[in-house]
Amino acid sequence: MFKAVVFDAYGTLLDVSSLSELGNELFPGKGVALCELWHKKQLEYSWLLSLMGKYQDFWSLTRLGLQYAGAALGLSIGDTQEERLMQAYLTLPPYPEVRTSLLRLSQRYPLALLSNGTPDMLESVVRVNNLETYLSHVLSADEVGVYKPHPKVYDLVIQAFFAIPGEIMFVSSNGWEVSGAKSFGFSVAWCNRAGATFETHAPPPDLVVENLEGLEALLP
Amino acid sequence: MFKAVVFDAYGTLLDVSSLSELGNELFPGKGVALCELWHKKQLEYSWLLSLMGKYQDFWSLTRLGLQYAGAALGLSIGDTQEERLMQAYLTLPPYPEVRTSLLRLSQRYPLALLSNGTPDMLESVVRVNNLETYLSHVLSADEVGVYKPHPKVYDLVIQAFFAIPGEIMFVSSNGWEVSGAKSFGFSVAWCNRAGATFETHAPPPDLVVENLEGLEALLP
Repeated sequence: MFKAVVFDAYGTLLDVSSLSELGNELFPGKGVALCELWHKKQLEYSWLLSLMGKYQDFWSLTRLGLQYAGAALGLSIGDTQEERLMQAYLTLPPYPEVRTSLLRLSQRYPLALLSNGTPDMLESVVRVNNLETYLSHVLSADEVGVYKPHPKVYDLVIQAFFAIPGEIMFVSSNGWEVSGAKSFGFSVAWCNRAGATFETHAPPPDLVVENLEGLEALLP
Repeated sequence: MFKAVVFDAYGTLLDVSSLSELGNELFPGKGVALCELWHKKQLEYSWLLSLMGKYQDFWSLTRLGLQYAGAALGLSIGDTQEERLMQAYLTLPPYPEVRTSLLRLSQRYPLALLSNGTPDMLESVVRVNNLETYLSHVLSADEVGVYKPHPKVYDLVIQAFFAIPGEIMFVSSNGWEVSGAKSFGFSVAWCNRAGATFETHAPPPDLVVENLEGLEALLP
């Protein structure tokens, strides 16, 4: 039995690929490339700034990533367009099974969210998608001023649940984070929605599932 | 005037794109994709493990990156093929202008190398390319057990030259490292060989040049 099941947000519960549709509406045919590079840079900046010992909050990094992606792809993203893309981050929809799976899982375990997103960003997506009732904690890396996979971020879960790492089942769709969480000592489920390749730099996850319904079936 | 000019190795002095030719020989038509993903993962792992507070040396990360890239692209890389690709890392050629530019620059400044590569990896490429005589120091992140852009790595230069950061001209072709070195306080030249987009997460470099000949012309 686990003391809690803790989820990553972006890409795990929330469908970031939905941004590509708005990207395509604003820049026909470029939505996928724009959003892939946007996400890649947002993530790289979170790692690099953490290593540099600097901190800018995730809302700022999201904007910087978008500006880089626009420049690299030669798109003139005007202020209004930038704002529409940024605001879309605050209303990202969940993947199809997420709400019903969280409902059922919340009857078996305390559930929580642990994300790089700022408290404001997380408050918004949780509220918009009516996820409040399922989550006992919404934890943000912003509280410690460094990003995943730094152990300080995962330690927020330990403090929230008075647990030792192995008592937490941590769930992420991002291979790099699965490695980070496993290295921290969590029990880890990789919700491998995209059928991605196993990372080679850390021990493999304890469970691999396609979506949260698969997770429900495998948890004790 | 600067106390020293310090160069990154891979991609700055050494032409990693040359690996694609061997990649294509072993896996026709796949060399570029293989080497791009190989390099991407090698780099990601250096950042991620540093953030996780773990360390594996750069020779190991180079192998892990190659294994990931092979798996992700569905290539069966046999032991002999893996070894050939790995060994090629030890004999990477310099870009065309590097030897003559280093010769001339070494008559104006002390020069050094600062790289993520292990001492063995660096010793090999320096020797194979006859660069010893131009370099007063060959510094490896391995000495501090963490990777660029962590300040501990850049601090190796400070210790080697008894300098303050602004007295060092640091030269890299990698945008992410230019940001890291600038954030550390070095004077920085971006040898932007590929015409890449400016990163947005840190102050811009002091100089931008296309190759080392451009750098020669702009240094005081």
